[in-house]
Amino acid sequence: MMQFEPPKLKKNFLDHLTAIVGPGDYSAKNLDRFNYSRDSNFKSVIRIRHSQVEPLPDVIVWPKDAEQLKKLVRLAIRTKMPMIPFGGGSGVCGGTIAETGGMIVDMKKMYRLLKVDSANLLATAETGIMGYTLEKELQRKGYSLGHFPSSILCASLGGYLAARSAGQSSSRYGKIEDMVRELEVVTGKGEIIQTRDVGNGDGIDLNQIFVGSEGTLGFITKATLRIYPLAPHQAFRGVRFKNMKTGMEAVRRIMQTGLKPAVVRLYDEIDTLLFMGYKKQKGVIEALSGLTVPFRKFLMSPSLWGALSAPKLVAPVLSHLPTGCLLILMHEGIERLVAEEQKIVMEICHDLGGADLGEEPGRVWFEHRYSVSYKASPLFHSGAFVDTIEVAATWDRMEALYKAVLKAMSPHCLVMAHLSHAYAEGGSFYFTFLAPLSGLKKSEALYDLIWDEGIEACQEIGGVISHHHGVGRLKAKYMDREWGEGAALYRRFKDHFDPHGIMNPGKLVELKKKQKEKAA
Amino acid sequence: MMQFEPPKLKKNFLDHLTAIVGPGDYSAKNLDRFNYSRDSNFKSVIRIRHSQVEPLPDVIVWPKDAEQLKKLVRLAIRTKMPMIPFGGGSGVCGGTIAETGGMIVDMKKMYRLLKVDSANLLATAETGIMGYTLEKELQRKGYSLGHFPSSILCASLGGYLAARSAGQSSSRYGKIEDMVRELEVVTGKGEIIQTRDVGNGDGIDLNQIFVGSEGTLGFITKATLRIYPLAPHQAFRGVRFKNMKTGMEAVRRIMQTGLKPAVVRLYDEIDTLLFMGYKKQKGVIEALSGLTVPFRKFLMSPSLWGALSAPKLVAPVLSHLPTGCLLILMHEGIERLVAEEQKIVMEICHDLGGADLGEEPGRVWFEHRYSVSYKASPLFHSGAFVDTIEVAATWDRMEALYKAVLKAMSPHCLVMAHLSHAYAEGGSFYFTFLAPLSGLKKSEALYDLIWDEGIEACQEIGGVISHHHGVGRLKAKYMDREWGEGAALYRRFKDHFDPHGIMNPGKLVELKKKQKEKAA
Repeated sequence: MMQFEPPKLKKNFLDHLTAIVGPGDYSAKNLDRFNYSRDSNFKSVIRIRHSQVEPLPDVIVWPKDAEQLKKLVRLAIRTKMPMIPFGGGSGVCGGTIAETGGMIVDMKKMYRLLKVDSANLLATAETGIMGYTLEKELQRKGYSLGHFPSSILCASLGGYLAARSAGQSSSRYGKIEDMVRELEVVTGKGEIIQTRDVGNGDGIDLNQIFVGSEGTLGFITKATLRIYPLAPHQAFRGVRFKNMKTGMEAVRRIMQTGLKPAVVRLYDEIDTLLFMGYKKQKGVIEALSGLTVPFRKFLMSPSLWGALSAPKLVAPVLSHLPTGCLLILMHEGIERLVAEEQKIVMEICHDLGGADLGEEPGRVWFEHRYSVSYKASPLFHSGAFVDTIEVAATWDRMEALYKAVLKAMSPHCLVMAHLSHAYAEGGSFYFTFLAPLSGLKKSEALYDLIWDEGIEACQEIGGVISHHHGVGRLKAKYMDREWGEGAALYRRFKDHFDPHGIMNPGKLVELKKKQKEKAA
Repeated sequence: MMQFEPPKLKKNFLDHLTAIVGPGDYSAKNLDRFNYSRDSNFKSVIRIRHSQVEPLPDVIVWPKDAEQLKKLVRLAIRTKMPMIPFGGGSGVCGGTIAETGGMIVDMKKMYRLLKVDSANLLATAETGIMGYTLEKELQRKGYSLGHFPSSILCASLGGYLAARSAGQSSSRYGKIEDMVRELEVVTGKGEIIQTRDVGNGDGIDLNQIFVGSEGTLGFITKATLRIYPLAPHQAFRGVRFKNMKTGMEAVRRIMQTGLKPAVVRLYDEIDTLLFMGYKKQKGVIEALSGLTVPFRKFLMSPSLWGALSAPKLVAPVLSHLPTGCLLILMHEGIERLVAEEQKIVMEICHDLGGADLGEEPGRVWFEHRYSVSYKASPLFHSGAFVDTIEVAATWDRMEALYKAVLKAMSPHCLVMAHLSHAYAEGGSFYFTFLAPLSGLKKSEALYDLIWDEGIEACQEIGGVISHHHGVGRLKAKYMDREWGEGAALYRRFKDHFDPHGIMNPGKLVELKKKQKEKAA
């Protein structure tokens, strides 16, 4: 049985909470504090396996509207209490960990879809709404947000916005920051502000200051977003390429021809191998994209441990498997346009030696598209840990990025990758890595080493270290190099919107000493 | 002969200029000061007709790079001298007028297209490059920016960025703010900063703080932008609708179906009448879109003066002319897709009673697409002044916006309008108004009155008061109502990036008293 320090709360403080949200909508119970002490970052999972708990928040609060939240911020300012926004808890970067204790603000009671505006194709929702609920409600009315992260079942709209989320269809509909028209924000000064849609107008677009700020400037409480009529038609395809080089060239040409496939995913040899297993064995537990019975057996077998202790030897063998590299395509829209688009895409693939595998690989992917995000636990039980690094680059750097990150990580773990999001100017590579669990210190050190090596390789190439998972606690230390002057500018915003240093401390960028002291 | 006060410059200051840019790259001559005392704002033109000159800058400087510019800013800080960026001078909102004297920084010696990156479809250029030069250079290499403002012949890239410019193909390629990937900025603190492309990554997008800031935070010196392969095929079309209501509904459906025509312009009855003149009389001087020989004759004739002195009587007559409302369409891209898109668009138009006029109206529009911006002078010579108000709204407000602005302005001038830019969530209306010149005071008062009435009507409806012309001096007084909390936030940025209050004073938003004092 774990023992926790009691929260550092005064009676007076709790009375204020009662006055603001009522007696039932906050909790300082150890069970709640424990439950809210982590998100889905794998380091937390490693720790918990060894009965190590992340820093506990002192209290969890469930406000019902921006007015209550404003009062909470003002209370937190008076009592110098850190505040951490919490949505679905699906983040994998430790963005919601209460590093220095404080108040977790769970946004899930602000869950209403306020308006579906069919005249203008806009929707307004409170940000505590879960991604899947939002999409389902929209679809019921004939619309879609066009945003399908694999975490859709366990992520909130607020989380999407805080971390610049990308859905699986971002090549057609953009990332969440492209969808935002207006925001309501409760700042770290305890003010409620409204940004205005200036997408068609003049002045400065303030939406883009809050999207991606990961709760470090304030709480995004409401958002107006672009929506789309439900696509009347979808078409799927799988194409096999000889190797990543030709596959990547095909994806680049598709996107730069101005075509807008909804899904474009290119799997490398090992990732393809796992994916192909689907076709034979459906319905089993999949922890990774494509984790199948044969692979589960492999995980339980001594061969895994061989592979993991000598990944340098195994990876080259696996990468020469005759699977080739699988490209998954989905087109959607008006049937006649989809048909023409698909034809043009297939011509591009054919020119680069791509073999048409027909509809099935695309359909199989579609059926399993949400199976990744919240099913990693079977792997832990089998004694391995798994995590993902999603980086991005322009096309000129893409092959180098793929090779360099793979090379940097491979000595330490089994790595596979797919190009998961593609755009005209570049795309995102999604690396999945698997390493054996051992003692806490050793596992943590290995985890940090793999991350440092992967990120170092990415930054050396000039890539972007995070495409859609956000930064959180995990990557804050890399952001000064990543962001350059941007980090300096951000610190000014931080001073402005969070002058008391209480908003989600320890996240996004490492602060200057003075700012750190404020937060401490 | 006009007499000007000599510039308020000390010998020491000029020595510094010589040291920074060399003796040939600044001027305090009256002729230059006069030439740089206005942009294309029509109020300045009214004034000059009466020998009234806008405030003169003290000096004009032509720096060659960001380093020189940085030194100029530091000199300006030390000497409390206002700095005003100047590109092509095509702005129509008085954004480059030296309200309180100071230094005009003409960016045109920073004119290089630095990189055309065909692997990533990106281009990097210095911002003093003229729009047409940039586009021509790109086209020579097989690419396009996809940005075609009617001012392309006389506007600079820096001007595009400063004022959130939209081109005639913004429904397909977006506005300039959608094209920006990275910027180099010399701030009002005398620092050179780089924003980073986070379009595919994480953190806060700082590009959007400088785009639209109209030189009030710093100078944008370099920009990396998205480019496109030249479209292999273009297709044109004209459709006549019975009235604006059905025409607007067609445009809304086209855009909300997810189609991406490159050009969508819907002209109201009077604007259509002028446009249709083209077909019979090409090659004459066109000052307005569609200004033809018959219209020029009309302008010279007593009937104009009848119309202008009683616009309330004339407009209803003109609006019942049997011209209907003309929709101009241009599609571009891969021929097969263009053909399908055009078919679907024509089906939508047909459902709403649109009559197919064939290719010609579209081709005629295309040939004359740049004739508007810099040929207003013939009208002045004939004793009238002309200006344009471009506002925007979501679709639910579009018809109300059109009617309300028309109604508000019509008692004072002859107004015509077209829906010039269309998007899924709304579009922009472009009102052209024509009024008689009389004495200076009376003309100025009428000019102000028409603007106030038009903007008031737009804001009452919930429209956006500027879609792509920017704000400048002209609309700064409306921005508090326009922007709400945004204006307050902007003032904080202003304090941060321009702590000395020297950057383009009097533009974008009216400042707080303290900020004004700083600038004075």
